[in-house]
Amino acid sequence: MTHGMTHGMTYINVWITECLTDTVKLLVFLTLPLHRDMMMSLDDKGSVQIQTKVLPQDSWTQVSCPCCVSKQVESLVLIQLSDNVQPVTKRWLISLIEASKRHGGAALLAHPGEDECGDVIVVSAPRCTLLRATEDLGLCKKYRNKEMASFSYHDRDNFTNVDDMQEFLTLAERQYIVKNELDSLQAQKKQRIPGVPEAPGVLEAWENICQKLVRAGVIKDIFPLHDQQRLNDVCRRWYSKKQIWRQPLDAIQSYFGGTMAFYFSFLQFYTWALVPPAFLGLVLTFLLPGGGGVVKEQAVEGVMEEEDYGPSVSGHMVQAVFSMLWSTLFIEFWKRRSSSLSHRWGTRHLTERFAEPRPGFQGTLGLNPVTGRLEPLFPEWQRQLRVGLVSLPLVGLFLGLVVLGMTGFYHGEALVQGFHQDSGSLFSGALLYLPSMAHTVYTNILKNVYHAVAMQLTKWENHREESSFQNHHITKVLLFTFFNNFAVLFHIAFYKQDLPLLRKKLASLLILNQLVNQCTEVVVPFIVDRFLSAAHKKEQEDNLEMDKLRAQRSLPPFPGLFAEYIELLVKFGYLSLFSCVYPLTAVLLLLNNITEIPGDAYKICKLFRKPFSAPVSNMGVWQTAFEVLGFVSVMSNCWLLLLSPRVQEFCLEGGISGKNIILFAILVEHVLILVKMILAFMIPDEPDWVRIKREQIEFNSMQALGQQKL
Amino acid sequence: MTHGMTHGMTYINVWITECLTDTVKLLVFLTLPLHRDMMMSLDDKGSVQIQTKVLPQDSWTQVSCPCCVSKQVESLVLIQLSDNVQPVTKRWLISLIEASKRHGGAALLAHPGEDECGDVIVVSAPRCTLLRATEDLGLCKKYRNKEMASFSYHDRDNFTNVDDMQEFLTLAERQYIVKNELDSLQAQKKQRIPGVPEAPGVLEAWENICQKLVRAGVIKDIFPLHDQQRLNDVCRRWYSKKQIWRQPLDAIQSYFGGTMAFYFSFLQFYTWALVPPAFLGLVLTFLLPGGGGVVKEQAVEGVMEEEDYGPSVSGHMVQAVFSMLWSTLFIEFWKRRSSSLSHRWGTRHLTERFAEPRPGFQGTLGLNPVTGRLEPLFPEWQRQLRVGLVSLPLVGLFLGLVVLGMTGFYHGEALVQGFHQDSGSLFSGALLYLPSMAHTVYTNILKNVYHAVAMQLTKWENHREESSFQNHHITKVLLFTFFNNFAVLFHIAFYKQDLPLLRKKLASLLILNQLVNQCTEVVVPFIVDRFLSAAHKKEQEDNLEMDKLRAQRSLPPFPGLFAEYIELLVKFGYLSLFSCVYPLTAVLLLLNNITEIPGDAYKICKLFRKPFSAPVSNMGVWQTAFEVLGFVSVMSNCWLLLLSPRVQEFCLEGGISGKNIILFAILVEHVLILVKMILAFMIPDEPDWVRIKREQIEFNSMQALGQQKL
Repeated sequence: MTHGMTHGMTYINVWITECLTDTVKLLVFLTLPLHRDMMMSLDDKGSVQIQTKVLPQDSWTQVSCPCCVSKQVESLVLIQLSDNVQPVTKRWLISLIEASKRHGGAALLAHPGEDECGDVIVVSAPRCTLLRATEDLGLCKKYRNKEMASFSYHDRDNFTNVDDMQEFLTLAERQYIVKNELDSLQAQKKQRIPGVPEAPGVLEAWENICQKLVRAGVIKDIFPLHDQQRLNDVCRRWYSKKQIWRQPLDAIQSYFGGTMAFYFSFLQFYTWALVPPAFLGLVLTFLLPGGGGVVKEQAVEGVMEEEDYGPSVSGHMVQAVFSMLWSTLFIEFWKRRSSSLSHRWGTRHLTERFAEPRPGFQGTLGLNPVTGRLEPLFPEWQRQLRVGLVSLPLVGLFLGLVVLGMTGFYHGEALVQGFHQDSGSLFSGALLYLPSMAHTVYTNILKNVYHAVAMQLTKWENHREESSFQNHHITKVLLFTFFNNFAVLFHIAFYKQDLPLLRKKLASLLILNQLVNQCTEVVVPFIVDRFLSAAHKKEQEDNLEMDKLRAQRSLPPFPGLFAEYIELLVKFGYLSLFSCVYPLTAVLLLLNNITEIPGDAYKICKLFRKPFSAPVSNMGVWQTAFEVLGFVSVMSNCWLLLLSPRVQEFCLEGGISGKNIILFAILVEHVLILVKMILAFMIPDEPDWVRIKREQIEFNSMQALGQQKL
Repeated sequence: MTHGMTHGMTYINVWITECLTDTVKLLVFLTLPLHRDMMMSLDDKGSVQIQTKVLPQDSWTQVSCPCCVSKQVESLVLIQLSDNVQPVTKRWLISLIEASKRHGGAALLAHPGEDECGDVIVVSAPRCTLLRATEDLGLCKKYRNKEMASFSYHDRDNFTNVDDMQEFLTLAERQYIVKNELDSLQAQKKQRIPGVPEAPGVLEAWENICQKLVRAGVIKDIFPLHDQQRLNDVCRRWYSKKQIWRQPLDAIQSYFGGTMAFYFSFLQFYTWALVPPAFLGLVLTFLLPGGGGVVKEQAVEGVMEEEDYGPSVSGHMVQAVFSMLWSTLFIEFWKRRSSSLSHRWGTRHLTERFAEPRPGFQGTLGLNPVTGRLEPLFPEWQRQLRVGLVSLPLVGLFLGLVVLGMTGFYHGEALVQGFHQDSGSLFSGALLYLPSMAHTVYTNILKNVYHAVAMQLTKWENHREESSFQNHHITKVLLFTFFNNFAVLFHIAFYKQDLPLLRKKLASLLILNQLVNQCTEVVVPFIVDRFLSAAHKKEQEDNLEMDKLRAQRSLPPFPGLFAEYIELLVKFGYLSLFSCVYPLTAVLLLLNNITEIPGDAYKICKLFRKPFSAPVSNMGVWQTAFEVLGFVSVMSNCWLLLLSPRVQEFCLEGGISGKNIILFAILVEHVLILVKMILAFMIPDEPDWVRIKREQIEFNSMQALGQQKL
């Protein structure tokens, strides 16, 4: 038992570090004094309607364009300046924000907050800027004929709701556009930043102003503002009523933006999709004769021999084939769902390629051969070379280091155990824990180094588009995290070939995971919501006048969806890679997802700043990751099938040689992969009606090109 | 030896049937009396310049459009009527051809040939029809600014050479447009065909007229006419000077059209690409110690044990890895080449999807949701279902029948051999040949049935676009042919695991193939060209006045490129699937290709009618076939490596168990496939400059859509 325990130790350590980070963050956060302001401001359920967005309207900068004049300006984005910023710098920045594009400005609206000396600038956008940006982004909006059409500023009057920006664009879109405009501010010529000392305060021609101001310590942060009324509305429709099976996706998309909405759509789709494998798992475990290692494990404690056999041969086969079919159908139908969602949200025809490059993009200034605009240029082949010849080998090296660490751990453990058996002293007993601890430290250091390296590499690859940057960065971190999570399981499954151990590990991981999740994502928030926040409310009721902006400012920034996605992916990995060893995986995952949805929803609505969210047309690289995992799972299931003791016994009885059974497994693997590919090819990636809409748009744009003289 | 002989018999039989078809066709054809006319008319090397295209100019139908009036009308396409066609029917057809589109005509020019009663109609096209069709096809042409741009009728004056149709469009394009217009003739209402008896002579409303006339026996054939002068020019620059390494691809594209030009471009690319593997093969065979089974086989006849060992372990490994790298680079760089060719030839933006459906397309009449035109509609999902639930299983069934046939053959052979050994009579000796003969008959019947079934299935799948129809049809036939060709080799390699036999088979196939090819494609044409045709020329010199049209009519129709492509594919299969067994494959293939190019060129220029050729943007499904073969080759090479006697001996010596070596092979296979996929992903499918041009066009069309009110 000692061996099994320390053996699992390293994995549990790695995983607990990953997993508890959330909990710790949450708990630390709850004890912060800052938290009180936020709780108060976020938890008034519509009874007190003082909205953060109502600032003194006459302090907004004025617009020259007559169509953009409006009585009430909505606060969209907050620029947090450092405390010691000079009023002259703040004035200069405000003038830059309000200046027209022709004069190198952002053509936005700015508000100095409480007074000229305060450390915030509130930013909004006039109608014309929003509409032009909508065209530049390539967003589709509802046309007069009720169809979605790529928005065109020239043809704006034919789009519905074009006069009411709050109806026409979602809050997330408006805020993203403001951020985008701020990000694209460039110095027209070499100049000094007023009120900033000489050394950091000189802007080169074409230098990105916001990045420079952040580096110079003038800007501390830029973030979008919550709209309390809408937020309460979303919350009420979302997690308060436990809408797990039918979340208000449109409302989420509108308030939090595309990335978030795609995450929750996927989560919901995934939860539904888990029903069939969960059902199959239950049937295999409890109904089929000879099934269910777990049941027997618990029922017949004494018969250890029997317990380890797991599902029967036919059960195994059913699981392997079902797993192949299910993972294929899952990802193919998600693609269809995804394409219809992006059609519905008007993000099918984004034109990021033709927009300005992302702020961090470096290159020699030149004319973009496609759009004819002056911008930094960087040859594609050079980027490809950097990815292929530097990033790829480096990532491989780090994955190698993970394996090396694992090998070292096993080696060290064997060494220490040998020593303990020889001496048997208390000291040697304590030494038993050394390898596992050393491995944990090693893994953590490696992880931190890798994260830094991955970010630097991706920056150095110099991607022109933000989405491309994100995809490359996520892919790098994803590979490492996945490897880190699964190296031990693969080691147990394929190197040690110890299926009973694998089954125990899997069960304990899933159940432990489940418990911790329940705790962090449901119980803790529930307690906070019911007891702590109620107390806070009472205590601070007389504090109602305080600035809501400052309350939002004190919330921690949203850490991004990476952790959420990787959690889903790792669990999808447990399910698809090893499900034939432990058929109850799907049931546990289903339970997990049901608690995950309201938990995540609560976190996002209540515990963090509102994040910026670019319009996106799909889940990006995550979709590919799930798809790749589907292929790996076919291989994994075939080899697990081969290794299963029942199959081996079956072969021995039938007098089939080990070599032949391996060759048969190879054949099965290749056939299953072929079937999977044919199936994936046969199921169209978009529903017919979406395809027709897309072709209509393509046809129209072809016709338009033909009708115009170039 | 007897066993080995009959064993190979079946394969040789199948293959000789395939291979000799060409030769037989050619020889039969050469003895036809018709041939004389053709030879004469085709072989005057520019000395006598009476061109077929000059018909009495005043007999052409007149055009009403002033811009289309020209003094000289070029004969493009010939409609061959049956002998007993009534003058009234011919007049009706001519009037239909010349009628404007508004009146349900084809808006073409027609010429009645010698007189009103003759059995031909010569068709040409006026400028406006050509230009409008160019826009409909989505062809790109050179714009004023020297860039390629999608042609727009509206903007026609800004395209270069737009006044001279012979410069603006290639001959192949003009002829294809005429065919397309003829194919799209539809009856406006229910009507009788004048001069055709009641039963077959009633056209339903919207019925396709040309198809109906073919069924009713009025039209025997429609084919494009050779332009003698251009043809001589192409020939001179092409095969007469043995331009194997640098064929005049643009001239081929212009005269014969895209499909043909892509075939020859690929052939040339492939020939160049064979140089490195040929070099490696030579090195492995003649230079490396322990290499070259063949050399030893010939040199040390006595030492049979040694001979069978083939290349050394390291040589094997080098071959397997090299094969993976080479096949990946080959197909990726071909994709790049292909995309730059299609840019150059203006076929990157074809709009077949938005054009009229192909003539055989069935459906309920309705409004196309994309283009808004009235046409037959057929739901995509229904087609997918037909492909997936009917075609796929049926194709699988036939492939199963091939395997069944092979198994039956081996079974029968074993039976007969046993019988012969028992009795040893003359009768039983003769019986030895029975299984092989039965198998040949079986295979041939199966093949013919399958070809008919494949055609019917593809028609029944009801593809809207011609390219989609072609791809599905080719895929079906291709799978079967490939299976038929390789089943025996795979059987020897993986079931019998008899590598020496595989090596012998491969060598004999390649060398025999080579000889037959040399004979059919070089020697015979050479003899014909030099001796027969010279004799004919002399003999018929006084016959110069005879109608050249009739001479072309007597040529056999071009059988299509299927046989040519499948030959390349099968040989690529020998190379990539089994090259590590017989390293000289690449050398033999290189020699084969060098003779193939002028042979094919000669055949196409001299021995057949000019074929219609649609503008295409790539090789279509053939490219996919080569790509898939690349993946299969990685698997094949890994398993051959595993089976090779040297590796097995090496393992036995090293004390590695058979199971472990198989597991190692699995690992190598998966890693190689992963590397192949990463490599394929890393190499962009189009060169940078092509990508930029494409994005320019996309950007322009997006802008155009924005600027116009819908």
